[in-house]
Amino acid sequence: MAEVALIVGSKSDVAAAKGALDVLDRFGVGWEASVCSAHRAPERLRRVIQEAEDAGTRVFIAGAGMAAALPGAVASMTTRPVVGVPLASGALNGIDALLAIAQMPPGIPVATVAINGAANAAYLAIEILAVNDAQLTAKLADWRKEQSQRIDTFE
Amino acid sequence: MAEVALIVGSKSDVAAAKGALDVLDRFGVGWEASVCSAHRAPERLRRVIQEAEDAGTRVFIAGAGMAAALPGAVASMTTRPVVGVPLASGALNGIDALLAIAQMPPGIPVATVAINGAANAAYLAIEILAVNDAQLTAKLADWRKEQSQRIDTFE
Amino acid sequence: MAEVALIVGSKSDVAAAKGALDVLDRFGVGWEASVCSAHRAPERLRRVIQEAEDAGTRVFIAGAGMAAALPGAVASMTTRPVVGVPLASGALNGIDALLAIAQMPPGIPVATVAINGAANAAYLAIEILAVNDAQLTAKLADWRKEQSQRIDTFE
Amino acid sequence: MAEVALIVGSKSDVAAAKGALDVLDRFGVGWEASVCSAHRAPERLRRVIQEAEDAGTRVFIAGAGMAAALPGAVASMTTRPVVGVPLASGALNGIDALLAIAQMPPGIPVATVAINGAANAAYLAIEILAVNDAQLTAKLADWRKEQSQRIDTFE
Amino acid sequence: MAEVALIVGSKSDVAAAKGALDVLDRFGVGWEASVCSAHRAPERLRRVIQEAEDAGTRVFIAGAGMAAALPGAVASMTTRPVVGVPLASGALNGIDALLAIAQMPPGIPVATVAINGAANAAYLAIEILAVNDAQLTAKLADWRKEQSQRIDTFE
Amino acid sequence: MAEVALIVGSKSDVAAAKGALDVLDRFGVGWEASVCSAHRAPERLRRVIQEAEDAGTRVFIAGAGMAAALPGAVASMTTRPVVGVPLASGALNGIDALLAIAQMPPGIPVATVAINGAANAAYLAIEILAVNDAQLTAKLADWRKEQSQRIDTFE
Amino acid sequence: MAEVALIVGSKSDVAAAKGALDVLDRFGVGWEASVCSAHRAPERLRRVIQEAEDAGTRVFIAGAGMAAALPGAVASMTTRPVVGVPLASGALNGIDALLAIAQMPPGIPVATVAINGAANAAYLAIEILAVNDAQLTAKLADWRKEQSQRIDTFE
Amino acid sequence: MAEVALIVGSKSDVAAAKGALDVLDRFGVGWEASVCSAHRAPERLRRVIQEAEDAGTRVFIAGAGMAAALPGAVASMTTRPVVGVPLASGALNGIDALLAIAQMPPGIPVATVAINGAANAAYLAIEILAVNDAQLTAKLADWRKEQSQRIDTFE
Repeated sequence: MAEVALIVGSKSDVAAAKGALDVLDRFGVGWEASVCSAHRAPERLRRVIQEAEDAGTRVFIAGAGMAAALPGAVASMTTRPVVGVPLASGALNGIDALLAIAQMPPGIPVATVAINGAANAAYLAIEILAVNDAQLTAKLADWRKEQSQRIDTFE
Repeated sequence: MAEVALIVGSKSDVAAAKGALDVLDRFGVGWEASVCSAHRAPERLRRVIQEAEDAGTRVFIAGAGMAAALPGAVASMTTRPVVGVPLASGALNGIDALLAIAQMPPGIPVATVAINGAANAAYLAIEILAVNDAQLTAKLADWRKEQSQRIDTFE
Repeated sequence: MAEVALIVGSKSDVAAAKGALDVLDRFGVGWEASVCSAHRAPERLRRVIQEAEDAGTRVFIAGAGMAAALPGAVASMTTRPVVGVPLASGALNGIDALLAIAQMPPGIPVATVAINGAANAAYLAIEILAVNDAQLTAKLADWRKEQSQRIDTFE
Repeated sequence: MAEVALIVGSKSDVAAAKGALDVLDRFGVGWEASVCSAHRAPERLRRVIQEAEDAGTRVFIAGAGMAAALPGAVASMTTRPVVGVPLASGALNGIDALLAIAQMPPGIPVATVAINGAANAAYLAIEILAVNDAQLTAKLADWRKEQSQRIDTFE
Repeated sequence: MAEVALIVGSKSDVAAAKGALDVLDRFGVGWEASVCSAHRAPERLRRVIQEAEDAGTRVFIAGAGMAAALPGAVASMTTRPVVGVPLASGALNGIDALLAIAQMPPGIPVATVAINGAANAAYLAIEILAVNDAQLTAKLADWRKEQSQRIDTFE
Repeated sequence: MAEVALIVGSKSDVAAAKGALDVLDRFGVGWEASVCSAHRAPERLRRVIQEAEDAGTRVFIAGAGMAAALPGAVASMTTRPVVGVPLASGALNGIDALLAIAQMPPGIPVATVAINGAANAAYLAIEILAVNDAQLTAKLADWRKEQSQRIDTFE
Repeated sequence: MAEVALIVGSKSDVAAAKGALDVLDRFGVGWEASVCSAHRAPERLRRVIQEAEDAGTRVFIAGAGMAAALPGAVASMTTRPVVGVPLASGALNGIDALLAIAQMPPGIPVATVAINGAANAAYLAIEILAVNDAQLTAKLADWRKEQSQRIDTFE
Repeated sequence: MAEVALIVGSKSDVAAAKGALDVLDRFGVGWEASVCSAHRAPERLRRVIQEAEDAGTRVFIAGAGMAAALPGAVASMTTRPVVGVPLASGALNGIDALLAIAQMPPGIPVATVAINGAANAAYLAIEILAVNDAQLTAKLADWRKEQSQRIDTFE
């Protein structure tokens, strides 16, 4: 079952978003991924979200660049948590996308992560799912421990 | 008849957008104005736009602050020209809104004007309407002439 | 029970963060709120977080201005989701805090909301809690419906 | 007939502006394109604009980088709608051009699009021409439909 | 005789530009000042500049805010040195004007000073005039000496 | 003895930080260098700092990119001077790191140097150590003299 | 004896810099304070620094706004550590000063603190003096402990 | 005779500054060029400037990157006009240098040109020299005419 649905606004965003899927796989969290523009296909976006919710999706991850309306559009169409990933496309290298995703109006939040932070979007989605999943919480704790114990040498 | 439809994203944006209406009035261009959030009421936004188009609206002006998705959302729901006005609300004073409105993806343009540039949004709408309206074109030319002849003293 | 723990980095941040508590109250979500600096009292911060977790906290909200290390510090000490609120204190009016909170390294995400977006931090926390709470999901849906039906006049 | 006149400020801007012409061609909209600097040849610019207007041009597209005075200069010499394209030349990669084009004073608007957004400038010009051209409106609607139905796979 | 001609783009810029005149007066340098918009009255601007040159003006100072095309427009119409003063009007507080004035293309330079730096524009104009004026050079040297000898107490 | 301890937040920061070590070597100042993330291993960071202090470290240099919490975290765990080096990793090329390191709250200062300014971090550390070391002060003076006497030709 | 010398670039910077002196007083560290512009009185600046060094100054604090050359100028005239405080004067509110102070070239470091961070400049100066002063180190540790034990209520 | 003296702050700035010399050569204006850091060799800088003035230099051009104190330092040491060229070195690509050069305090102006605008610095220097040189003025007019008559094709 796809507990997480990843949506990007354009085919050209796929590469930058894929890092999220590796993380979800590593934690055994089911996902589905699609390409759907908030601006070019707003009606289809509504259906994609509805179908995902019906199929059991609990967290959305939306990645977009430049004006980056997608995460906010997804958030306006669901009450599930939406994680937004600003992507560094275009001349401004993602600062436009970061602001467009973070500066949401009251009532429709988007959980914004770093520019090109697809991996962290996945970690955040996992933390959200783990709120009611002791097993996933344990996996996270193990992974954190592992991270804290990994010692890199300065060479 | 409302040839221009002005939409702002929130009640708090009304004051900053009103300058557009004064300009439209001065040129005898009919308008209607409404408040509708792209994020809080996307379905109603679609109806507002559809009803405006059915009633003869030819140009939309959309004003919004912060993440400022409204102009792009309007643009995604009509093929009429959409003029976007970034509003200086919030801590970043409108630079976020400017980027969110200007940096639109290919295919769904928004004609962006200055931060808090509601008056210019109206002038642009009038220029667009004047493309096929010789009388309005003449009015614009008169007004421009008047502007160019107004001499302010340096005092 | 305090399902949400709100922490701000300094006494001067309290006013800007309080909007979160009103939202939580409106949705009947329990909270506790404290003031604890990541830089001045890192050890106490660890205890505050541990005690909150032990008492049943599922989501953290952390607000801070300027270098704004608090949300990331909280995130490094728990695997619960952490919502970060950049606060507009200091000469840069919050853009420093936004970047310091959003640009987290892989593995330790912070769910960043808008500058001074304490209300949205609460909405996001509620959405996260609602992932496994049908009643809270229904409340959110009702509230969203209410929002979408509220019609502001352009006056 | 050239309904759209494209002007860029320098030979080095041609490549970034050409995307506009492909779009205009696809919609069967006539165009002419020229290189003329607002700063180096202001008198010739006036003639280029006058001749274009005389020959039936209804919309101007002006692309420029850095201080990017060209779109505003064109706008000051015509009452036809002027679409401005900020180009990412120079050390600041177009943010200077975006501000120089968008932040126009009241009375002389420029319809600003994204940095390097030449294609969108053409779409906006077409939308403006379509205001009184049912056939072009239909073409735009078809193209939008096509866009909304194109489904990209996430691979 | 007006060796320096000060031009601002709008009546609202007069206050911010006046500091230049006090400095010119103190050094006994003749000036004239006018209000003329590059965008609203480009033809009149050309006349203002031509008349100033004919009357003996050797240096121009041009102050403008936002898109701030005036200094560059003046520079394109004369080979006399043009000092540009970015003014802090509008939501972006002058950073837009600074970039629009400083980032000029090759061949048409503007000598840009600080945002709201009207006094320094005058000092720069005086330095330029002093290049061939030993008496003015001596005055500048005296003033600099005075400045260097003024000792402010830290109280 | 390691009078200076250099810590970077991630293996990928090592290359950008190494310039500091060359400078320390040239001045005969002992150092140790380690990789330890403030976010992924806060507990180990405390031990690294404690052990360094116990071993005689008098100045810390901490380099990090993006949210760049490391220098502030080190500063919160020691009263020794901490020099922070913002590193230009990620889409924003170090401006995020610069703000995150410089904008520290009162009481916990970080001595911030330029983006990628590892060499200057070392010079600053040496200046700090030289405050009570006449021999090191003399070396610094010699080196400065050498710098001031090096004449590069303009070719 | 004045172990710390505080210099600001202009009379108008005194208020923003005074916070440093309160901190130094609290820790019993002697200081002297003067006003001296790097640009208007470079020769006097050299004397001020030389006299301070001769009188035993070990750390300099330099505060300046806008182009903010003072801290770097001080650093170029001494090998003592120089702490630079960017001051939020002028239209850009200190971001110009922050960059002008932090982005120093290799060999002449300035220890930059936050915009308007005069208090932290003092804490940093104290930490530097404490490197060889066990009593001052103990005072710093006490103060830090006090800070970490102060519990502010969220009211 | 070297009517223009070009100074850059570091050997690495030579390439970006050379464009100025080509322009000066084309107009038959004598120059000398040197490398001298304001921070590393302030005393030598004073001598370089004094010797240039003694040898007849009337205009200085100073290019520097990052904190870019050189143009302001030159301006503080002469009453001759100083043209400042911000160079795009370092992680911030010249925006730091632009601010550091443009935002000078009252009394010590620097005539700032675009980032990497060495050619325009030369044109500005020539315009300044031409203020009292009818022949040079004529050359400038010819060159401007040539520029305005050059017609680039859009291909």
